[in-house]
Amino acid sequence: MDILTIANLKRAATVGRVEAIIHGQVDSLTRKETRDQKPFWEVVLGDAESKITLRAWSDSPAFSECEQMARGEFLEVTGEFVHNGAFGTDARRWTGRRLGENERQALLAGPAELRDRQNADYELITRTVESLGDPRLRTLAQNFLGDWGERFRRTAAARNYHHARRGGLVEHTAQMMRSAEAIAAVYPRLNRDLLISGVLFHDCGKLWENVLPENGFNMPYTETGELLGHIPVGIELVNSLWRKIDFTPWAGLEPASEEVRLHLLHLIAAHHGEKQFGSPVDPKTPEAVALHYIDNLDAKMEMFAAGYETAQQLAPGIFERVRPLPGNIVLPLAKFVTGPA
Amino acid sequence: MDILTIANLKRAATVGRVEAIIHGQVDSLTRKETRDQKPFWEVVLGDAESKITLRAWSDSPAFSECEQMARGEFLEVTGEFVHNGAFGTDARRWTGRRLGENERQALLAGPAELRDRQNADYELITRTVESLGDPRLRTLAQNFLGDWGERFRRTAAARNYHHARRGGLVEHTAQMMRSAEAIAAVYPRLNRDLLISGVLFHDCGKLWENVLPENGFNMPYTETGELLGHIPVGIELVNSLWRKIDFTPWAGLEPASEEVRLHLLHLIAAHHGEKQFGSPVDPKTPEAVALHYIDNLDAKMEMFAAGYETAQQLAPGIFERVRPLPGNIVLPLAKFVTGPA
Amino acid sequence: MDILTIANLKRAATVGRVEAIIHGQVDSLTRKETRDQKPFWEVVLGDAESKITLRAWSDSPAFSECEQMARGEFLEVTGEFVHNGAFGTDARRWTGRRLGENERQALLAGPAELRDRQNADYELITRTVESLGDPRLRTLAQNFLGDWGERFRRTAAARNYHHARRGGLVEHTAQMMRSAEAIAAVYPRLNRDLLISGVLFHDCGKLWENVLPENGFNMPYTETGELLGHIPVGIELVNSLWRKIDFTPWAGLEPASEEVRLHLLHLIAAHHGEKQFGSPVDPKTPEAVALHYIDNLDAKMEMFAAGYETAQQLAPGIFERVRPLPGNIVLPLAKFVTGPA
Amino acid sequence: MDILTIANLKRAATVGRVEAIIHGQVDSLTRKETRDQKPFWEVVLGDAESKITLRAWSDSPAFSECEQMARGEFLEVTGEFVHNGAFGTDARRWTGRRLGENERQALLAGPAELRDRQNADYELITRTVESLGDPRLRTLAQNFLGDWGERFRRTAAARNYHHARRGGLVEHTAQMMRSAEAIAAVYPRLNRDLLISGVLFHDCGKLWENVLPENGFNMPYTETGELLGHIPVGIELVNSLWRKIDFTPWAGLEPASEEVRLHLLHLIAAHHGEKQFGSPVDPKTPEAVALHYIDNLDAKMEMFAAGYETAQQLAPGIFERVRPLPGNIVLPLAKFVTGPA
Amino acid sequence: MDILTIANLKRAATVGRVEAIIHGQVDSLTRKETRDQKPFWEVVLGDAESKITLRAWSDSPAFSECEQMARGEFLEVTGEFVHNGAFGTDARRWTGRRLGENERQALLAGPAELRDRQNADYELITRTVESLGDPRLRTLAQNFLGDWGERFRRTAAARNYHHARRGGLVEHTAQMMRSAEAIAAVYPRLNRDLLISGVLFHDCGKLWENVLPENGFNMPYTETGELLGHIPVGIELVNSLWRKIDFTPWAGLEPASEEVRLHLLHLIAAHHGEKQFGSPVDPKTPEAVALHYIDNLDAKMEMFAAGYETAQQLAPGIFERVRPLPGNIVLPLAKFVTGPA
Amino acid sequence: MDILTIANLKRAATVGRVEAIIHGQVDSLTRKETRDQKPFWEVVLGDAESKITLRAWSDSPAFSECEQMARGEFLEVTGEFVHNGAFGTDARRWTGRRLGENERQALLAGPAELRDRQNADYELITRTVESLGDPRLRTLAQNFLGDWGERFRRTAAARNYHHARRGGLVEHTAQMMRSAEAIAAVYPRLNRDLLISGVLFHDCGKLWENVLPENGFNMPYTETGELLGHIPVGIELVNSLWRKIDFTPWAGLEPASEEVRLHLLHLIAAHHGEKQFGSPVDPKTPEAVALHYIDNLDAKMEMFAAGYETAQQLAPGIFERVRPLPGNIVLPLAKFVTGPA
Repeated sequence: MDILTIANLKRAATVGRVEAIIHGQVDSLTRKETRDQKPFWEVVLGDAESKITLRAWSDSPAFSECEQMARGEFLEVTGEFVHNGAFGTDARRWTGRRLGENERQALLAGPAELRDRQNADYELITRTVESLGDPRLRTLAQNFLGDWGERFRRTAAARNYHHARRGGLVEHTAQMMRSAEAIAAVYPRLNRDLLISGVLFHDCGKLWENVLPENGFNMPYTETGELLGHIPVGIELVNSLWRKIDFTPWAGLEPASEEVRLHLLHLIAAHHGEKQFGSPVDPKTPEAVALHYIDNLDAKMEMFAAGYETAQQLAPGIFERVRPLPGNIVLPLAKFVTGPA
Repeated sequence: MDILTIANLKRAATVGRVEAIIHGQVDSLTRKETRDQKPFWEVVLGDAESKITLRAWSDSPAFSECEQMARGEFLEVTGEFVHNGAFGTDARRWTGRRLGENERQALLAGPAELRDRQNADYELITRTVESLGDPRLRTLAQNFLGDWGERFRRTAAARNYHHARRGGLVEHTAQMMRSAEAIAAVYPRLNRDLLISGVLFHDCGKLWENVLPENGFNMPYTETGELLGHIPVGIELVNSLWRKIDFTPWAGLEPASEEVRLHLLHLIAAHHGEKQFGSPVDPKTPEAVALHYIDNLDAKMEMFAAGYETAQQLAPGIFERVRPLPGNIVLPLAKFVTGPA
Repeated sequence: MDILTIANLKRAATVGRVEAIIHGQVDSLTRKETRDQKPFWEVVLGDAESKITLRAWSDSPAFSECEQMARGEFLEVTGEFVHNGAFGTDARRWTGRRLGENERQALLAGPAELRDRQNADYELITRTVESLGDPRLRTLAQNFLGDWGERFRRTAAARNYHHARRGGLVEHTAQMMRSAEAIAAVYPRLNRDLLISGVLFHDCGKLWENVLPENGFNMPYTETGELLGHIPVGIELVNSLWRKIDFTPWAGLEPASEEVRLHLLHLIAAHHGEKQFGSPVDPKTPEAVALHYIDNLDAKMEMFAAGYETAQQLAPGIFERVRPLPGNIVLPLAKFVTGPA
Repeated sequence: MDILTIANLKRAATVGRVEAIIHGQVDSLTRKETRDQKPFWEVVLGDAESKITLRAWSDSPAFSECEQMARGEFLEVTGEFVHNGAFGTDARRWTGRRLGENERQALLAGPAELRDRQNADYELITRTVESLGDPRLRTLAQNFLGDWGERFRRTAAARNYHHARRGGLVEHTAQMMRSAEAIAAVYPRLNRDLLISGVLFHDCGKLWENVLPENGFNMPYTETGELLGHIPVGIELVNSLWRKIDFTPWAGLEPASEEVRLHLLHLIAAHHGEKQFGSPVDPKTPEAVALHYIDNLDAKMEMFAAGYETAQQLAPGIFERVRPLPGNIVLPLAKFVTGPA
Repeated sequence: MDILTIANLKRAATVGRVEAIIHGQVDSLTRKETRDQKPFWEVVLGDAESKITLRAWSDSPAFSECEQMARGEFLEVTGEFVHNGAFGTDARRWTGRRLGENERQALLAGPAELRDRQNADYELITRTVESLGDPRLRTLAQNFLGDWGERFRRTAAARNYHHARRGGLVEHTAQMMRSAEAIAAVYPRLNRDLLISGVLFHDCGKLWENVLPENGFNMPYTETGELLGHIPVGIELVNSLWRKIDFTPWAGLEPASEEVRLHLLHLIAAHHGEKQFGSPVDPKTPEAVALHYIDNLDAKMEMFAAGYETAQQLAPGIFERVRPLPGNIVLPLAKFVTGPA
Repeated sequence: MDILTIANLKRAATVGRVEAIIHGQVDSLTRKETRDQKPFWEVVLGDAESKITLRAWSDSPAFSECEQMARGEFLEVTGEFVHNGAFGTDARRWTGRRLGENERQALLAGPAELRDRQNADYELITRTVESLGDPRLRTLAQNFLGDWGERFRRTAAARNYHHARRGGLVEHTAQMMRSAEAIAAVYPRLNRDLLISGVLFHDCGKLWENVLPENGFNMPYTETGELLGHIPVGIELVNSLWRKIDFTPWAGLEPASEEVRLHLLHLIAAHHGEKQFGSPVDPKTPEAVALHYIDNLDAKMEMFAAGYETAQQLAPGIFERVRPLPGNIVLPLAKFVTGPA
């Protein structure tokens, strides 16, 4: 029997009954009672990308196992899984056991393919930062990676909708950097250093809004996130990093350092593109506009990719709306491979 | 004395009084009367990019010249030009003479720099079309350039706001193709052939909405443009080109030709991104979303570029709002050139 | 025991337990399992106007019948039906049998009263088309009925909300024609020929968006409908019919044929009344505005009629909101019949 | 020389210089000074449909005439009139004289054609009211015409945009009655008595918002109109008329009188169709929805008719936007007159 | 065992199983059947502030009790209560008995604390009304309390969202009066008499929209409320009270009585602040604007207070969105009590 | 002849020709030319509250005076002033002279009444700050007044619309403090210390957006204001003040200092009430909501006060719309003074 990620298990179960093993952390654990007053346990198990709800009935072996469990523990669950319409995926005849330390570390690290991709993405971010020409922006960005890199790598790009997984912000940022390089080459008037820095920092406030803990998978709500939101927090972070830099070696540089700081903060402040979407200021420079489109393009590309995997198919190639996309979605035109001239 | 384009003349006049020569076509010619009942002539003169209003008072030599002029004629005007606040640029002590045939052709061809840029852009479009892998899209695109290329090159990208000049649609399309190539490289799942074709055809309906005549500079209003708008007209044009293609050589190709046609039409239909901006359908594929952002990005980049040239400066680096941008605009951060590590 | 339509059965069941027979087609058929792992079958049955979900438990005779059924089959179901709150109408002690060919044809034809009404409506459309004065519009409309009449008669006016049944588009179109005749008499400047033609063609794109199959009741999703929407498809259909007409007999007619075509296409393009509702162009002629109101009026009248039948009653004469109406609805004031002066 | 209405004079002047006589009332009279400190008089003259501004320079005979004039007086003005672009129509070499009593009465009565049309419209309203079947609604409507008919006939349908002239509300109401009769015949479930009554009363609050004085042409602003608006004022008027009716003869009638009153008030309250347009309640009955469309249709038809007369022509058949219509407008397709079958 | 209000019972049950007694009125009583066809009764019981749904299974003593119950009866229910997630609070092993007359009166009077608070609030309203300086507004307000006070005290301030309980409108009005007094002191130009009167009458139309019956807890829907809404009904009520006042003693008072009436009606008409929220007219005086903010402030304060009690906690101090508030809510900063200077 | 402020001069000139003296600073100075090519000077003169444009014709004594003037100089202008419709107030026969140092200081200090009012308001702010119970908020607020008080007193509350004058922010803040005290007394659950601090700091970012220079009246545009806007700048200022405070004496205080900081920043971030108005986060605490209404109430009260002084009167008591108010405005009901009971 294979060890599946929870996301893969759910995908498999949409096709038919699956016998499988999953690893996850106990997100919540509640003793409940049926209408006719038989007790049962409800366990929510999560991993790097997804969650599943298990139920242990009073006459099952899992029931007594649940009596011993605690929230936050790491489990292996073995059982039969079936898709059950609106109720999602149900587990049958399941049993659980605690994970060993190595298994726990492996789970926390995420599936290998995802980890490799995120490592490569982080690598790209690091290299791109080193390539920044302006020593002030380069130093700022390097200090960010130095001081906050670990936290960055545990942060999701959003709570829902797109890249909503540990490390999702790294993936989103790396892809946006690729886009920004490409667009800066097409529009040579754009300040590439500034644009790349804007990509790096645009969502850095999410390190306090969508971060996952070091040892778990549950994205908490925080007063910082709720009361300020990631744009003001991001501005505060950049200002805090900026204050720690010694600018004396670069005293006479053009443009002036204060100009650099203001334009970078503007990119953070304006990246939602319109006030109604939470930017306290409209985009007022070409770089701010470009950053906004680069951000939205990547978010939408990811929503489509996720939609094709999870949305209900209405007809061949047609899928039900996945919010926040505006309507049903359609499979892309297959690529043309070879053909007569 | 130099021959200036009208746009350059206006720019120069904002700084101070200018003696200059301009070439243009008579857009309108009206005999009027002052409040105290002295007659004068009002002449609107246009060239490839701009327009200017001249007034000839009854006691000036230009007055009798105006008596001989007709709408549509091509003139050289020599005079002194001053910027006059809300009234725009005024001409003083001006005289006119009819252009010779060579001068007329030169004027119609546009300023050399603009013409060279548009030629290079058209070249790029042609080359990119040749590189399309799918023979159906390639043939369609080549037939479009073959059948409608001349008209394409006389079309503006819009009536106002951005690229609102003869050939503006070629510039806009070429720049979008560069962007589309770049983005397709960053998102390899995107169907590059389709996306490039979408760029070529997305505004092709404007050949009936924003086209300038062969021998003049006045963009007419047409019932086709008003009653249908460029999206339905563009769909109709692609369908008409499609019907003329012989698909028999490509009978078994994947994806099916009808699929190719529908996806291309979708890109035209959805490129405004939202129904409220005139798309009859929301974008439902990744290519449709990408095309929308590529289009908007280029339009906005051009609005900024024009805004820095024409908007009133409110403070160093700050300019008054230029619609449809949402607020004041700010000069980009100057690029960092060299500096200590 | 009576044979009821599914809609009538549901209406009856809201009052109390009903013993009844229904005829329908198997829309879907799924074997499921209860929480305590007993198998059951879930069958969705549809007819011309409505759908019902039946469940067959493992200890019932229907269970083994379900083992033999297939999607698309036509059934008679006999049983007891009860309304079960949010769960809709449940069937008890039901049994099924396959319909004979005659029964199947009768079911596909729809309930007699509906069929008669739709036949009368189609008759009216045909007669009105014959009365068109302009031979080009008359020929176009007659060709449409000739080429596409059968498909037209199987098309719904919408997927939800109003006239969402086989033949619903015929009902909607006929009623709009009655309205258009009436309004054209009140506003004699309106071009009645154009307005009537606009009514006929305004939703003709729905023949590819909301059509029901010849032999069933399930409205499929199609790439044509999703990628273009019924407005561009309708324009394409009219253009295709137009190209097949030989205009030589009418060469000198006023207004010119191209004018006629553009104005008719405008009515299709603008009939949603505003861009935000999916029209690529705003209404720019009186006929376009009139068509929009005639369309909306009929849709709303049908929504009220349906609302009074299906919405939950909140108090005597007051019903809960039925989307897309904006709020609760109220029974109309009863008509005054006779009374003292 | 002809006596022209001001509207006709303005129309004529768009073509070229006109010598003409106009009659009007002095709306305002102001002594001003030019930049170089010469005095002049500015006189605004109005008639039933339009207004014009005249200027009398210090060296003209009109200047001393102005010294004798007073606001509210009725004048005949003889002069030359020219269209002067954005400044409107200018008068040259004009002189004025006071109108005699008969001339004054003729002017107040309005141009004969308009008066005849409004008389016929009022006639239709009266006849339609007599045809109401429900004696309560008939009595209410007759009392309205009896008590407030004169004021009704002096009321405009709006301050701008449509039917913005003395008697305009009568024209608008009559045309809506024709529409309502036609629509009620098409939708027999509609309560025709209620719908007709709704048409009569829907804008009756405008008798306090858009009424013109008995002896003049200036529509005043009132606190009643500003602080309540015509919907609450209309409700108040119907309630006041209702209280004066003796309902005892109709004690047992169905539907109950209170029902009748509520449904009629609903039609007034909901006729703007949406809260954002000033209705305190959404339409909740079919009659309320029908009334809203009938109202909007007539307003839009009138805006088009006015637009074709006053808007600037952009190209043959195409006119610049006239607010509140959403965009440019296009001449309707000419009617087909006779032709081969 | 304690007698709890239903709201308190629900609050207690979120923590754990509760044995309790509740008093309430039978809101509805329905005999249903389980999927496996065993009968059960569903009883909805309501009190002054809340509702609960009880189920009596066929093998329970409550089942036969239900057979004897009728809608509208008053019951004592004794049982065990458990919170059951999305299904709300379930009752176990419950039995019921009819309330005696005294118990019924006590229940209708509401919980003592609520009753005392509402009595104090009504007292404040009465005193404030007596303090009005303008004898016309004072008389109007006193007549309102005299004629409609009892009904006022049975009215909720809304159907949902805030103060949605018997007497809620008294609480809302009293608190707004406190606010209005405070604001009028800060802005001395405000007409305090008018503002206080506006507070008293702004929602008086709700006496026909959100009133609870004398002997029960179910807020009915009425045609008056649906067809007019509380703003027109409130205007009608004030007009009706106004007509009954003899103004002769105050004939010469300034400002004129008609002015007073119009400004008061404006406050009712405009208190929703914008047309889109149902005001037929925008606020046009400082008092109208102040009333709008005072109203919204109190509604929002009550929504927060209710939200902290009922919304799901997402993290310490953070609660899930409670509509119509715009997002998650956060506990206020605790007050600082004592500390070093 | 009196020395008038520019605002008072303009008010006086609406009534008739005024001979007066004004003091102001030269805001701009431009040599222009008439259509017939005579030179003239255009001088914009400003004082604490308003601006006026003067023109000096070539044959006037002022002309040669202008030749000697420079931008930024302080002048006394003596002349005749007349209101000239849309062109505003014109000066006739004017002469100018430079102000002495004392006159300059007096002008910069503003009119005595305004200065006194602003001094009293600043006094109130200082006293209220001293009354804050929480030593952290008190210290923060005192440091703000100590470090930035002078700048605060030179700042306007907005660029247009309300309190758009030197010191306007002090007036706005003081009046909001009065309101906040009053509302906190009515809603005792509100955290008064936090609310008062929120009032003080809510617009403190405007010290970099709407500040006037020490020696002049021209509000400059700044990159800080444009690129960040006053909300992020205000957050940055509070954070900067916060960092300078030594919190060790208050180590154990409840609530924790970080909580205090977050809630205060939330009040700044959310005070625009909705994202569409530029708040990066919705109000999530009762204090944030209360602050928003207190802010808007004061802004609107000031807009009405200004509107009654400057807007065109349409009828007695009715004035034309003054943006951003939503429509025409009406004079408040006069207060009732004394009268019979």
